Amino acid sequence: MSHQLEKKSSYNVAIAGVTGAVGEIFLEILAERKFPINQLKLLASPRSAGKKISYDGKEYTVEALSKDSFNDVDIALFSAGGSTSKEFAPIAAKAGAVVIDNSSAFRMDDDVPLVVPEVNPAAAFRHKGIIANPNCTTIIMVVALKPLHEISPIKKVWVSSYQSASGAGAKGMYELQTQTRQLVNDEPLTIEAFSHQLLHNVIPHIDTPQDNGYTREEMKMFYETCKIMGDPSIKVSSTCVRVPVISAHSEAITIESENPITVEQAREALDKAPGIRVVDDLPNNIYPMPLDVAGKDDCEVGRIRKDLASENGLTFWVVGDQLRKGAALNAVQIAELLISK
Amino acid sequence: MSHQLEKKSSYNVAIAGVTGAVGEIFLEILAERKFPINQLKLLASPRSAGKKISYDGKEYTVEALSKDSFNDVDIALFSAGGSTSKEFAPIAAKAGAVVIDNSSAFRMDDDVPLVVPEVNPAAAFRHKGIIANPNCTTIIMVVALKPLHEISPIKKVWVSSYQSASGAGAKGMYELQTQTRQLVNDEPLTIEAFSHQLLHNVIPHIDTPQDNGYTREEMKMFYETCKIMGDPSIKVSSTCVRVPVISAHSEAITIESENPITVEQAREALDKAPGIRVVDDLPNNIYPMPLDVAGKDDCEVGRIRKDLASENGLTFWVVGDQLRKGAALNAVQIAELLISK
Repeated sequence: MSHQLEKKSSYNVAIAGVTGAVGEIFLEILAERKFPINQLKLLASPRSAGKKISYDGKEYTVEALSKDSFNDVDIALFSAGGSTSKEFAPIAAKAGAVVIDNSSAFRMDDDVPLVVPEVNPAAAFRHKGIIANPNCTTIIMVVALKPLHEISPIKKVWVSSYQSASGAGAKGMYELQTQTRQLVNDEPLTIEAFSHQLLHNVIPHIDTPQDNGYTREEMKMFYETCKIMGDPSIKVSSTCVRVPVISAHSEAITIESENPITVEQAREALDKAPGIRVVDDLPNNIYPMPLDVAGKDDCEVGRIRKDLASENGLTFWVVGDQLRKGAALNAVQIAELLISK
Repeated sequence: MSHQLEKKSSYNVAIAGVTGAVGEIFLEILAERKFPINQLKLLASPRSAGKKISYDGKEYTVEALSKDSFNDVDIALFSAGGSTSKEFAPIAAKAGAVVIDNSSAFRMDDDVPLVVPEVNPAAAFRHKGIIANPNCTTIIMVVALKPLHEISPIKKVWVSSYQSASGAGAKGMYELQTQTRQLVNDEPLTIEAFSHQLLHNVIPHIDTPQDNGYTREEMKMFYETCKIMGDPSIKVSSTCVRVPVISAHSEAITIESENPITVEQAREALDKAPGIRVVDDLPNNIYPMPLDVAGKDDCEVGRIRKDLASENGLTFWVVGDQLRKGAALNAVQIAELLISK
């Protein structure tokens, strides 16, 4: 198939949206993991073209994304928003690149795999030029669900999220930092990135409202979980809330499984699972927190306990860096997977 | 019974712990609601004795709490911590006062009513000198549960909280404000009131760990809900999380009831319920948020929608000022109830 990556010693990689919050982390992670890059092409909107960015000791000039950007590109990492992906990902795929797209544009398309390498690695190879990177909050949840699902199938999930400002991109992170400074300096607070003041507040609204009273973010957690886990029978009900945290998303999760999963079984399975670290010692004030997890690759799981309301229920707390595992790292791991065969 | 309040035109009221976060609000609320006070006695630890506090245009001197503090007191409002309540509430009751105690010291005692006036007003009259004011997070939840429970009995509750700094008292609120200033001024952050930095973080740990992996705060939400609702069959599973908000607690709640409750039924019942305001217009960015609810008496409910995981499930979002309805206001409402008969 034309779209399977040819085995090479190094690859031509393009990053579309390199000046955004996730774009920057793409570069960090590619360098950290010594991804075998032959040529690197940094792409962004015309507004950012000409900007200099250094990678691995060399300076690169950001180019304006155009329909000619993808000639000779093997792997195109997209994180430039849904409309940009919709326009340029098919062009990149047609030009022969494998696109790994961080937007929600193609996630639910039948012929686009939605991949979390720890959960459904095989799906990555069934692409037709575009592979979708799931929603950040969903990725962080499913890495923890997967090892439990293997003990006993998960039937129901209730999740409340505590999502950080940088989930709304660099502008969200910047707005929280700006509001913090403004409050202390007694200045009026800038409110642009979020619909309300985020500092010293929480906002139970992420992404656009849907007809059923849920937000799009909340519905993504339902549909994407089913697709990634390959089980359309899982029901996910969520409340997605923005909290005044710079980076890393937290989630309070309850699962109900077909058969009971004990705390010991869960801890053992999570301990062995890739991409997860169990951080669970409440009496010593040890549990995952966004301040600790920001900048880390692994998602951390703690507060693991039997659910008190559901018969076969288990309750726990997961925190993951949504710019890394929730976005850039997951995409790079998909690329690593593709070049590993 | 000696402990039922005699009908008078005004009452001698003592406040124990008047210099704390809740103590201050006690005074605000008594004044706002023109509680009929004959003599007012302001009590605190010896450390705070001598402090001047004005109430309704008059200046009062804080006295050190002692075993002689309660002679001639009709109503004693306590918010001075569990150990002070344990020592002095029985003394006050013996001296003839009716104690309304905001600590957790007596809440689960069989002969101490645990009262939320909107939920179980009759229980208030079954006291033997001490009435307990429930945990703040529990009060805010049960005012919303009660009207739904009347449509169809609630069997299960899953709740994740977003609790503000002032839930840990004035020192918690002060620490978040201090950390905000310190971060902006590039100073080291003071971490004393909470086990970790709260600013730009969330901490999934409130109150002491229990053997079952839950915290005491989380277990209070279970046991106190059953006692207040008068239904020991309700099962409550919660995750209590501290968030960097100054005041007002938020809660993402899912209930499973015996029979389905529609969104329309729920909204209608909550709209009519005392102590609640429905604030629910997601497409117009309208929902309860702590910044808006702080300082208000009513709890606000929004994001009301059918739960997607549970058959007879309903999911919603409640925010309440935990110093007011979650503490001082609820206690004063209990006092009003007692003098109303």
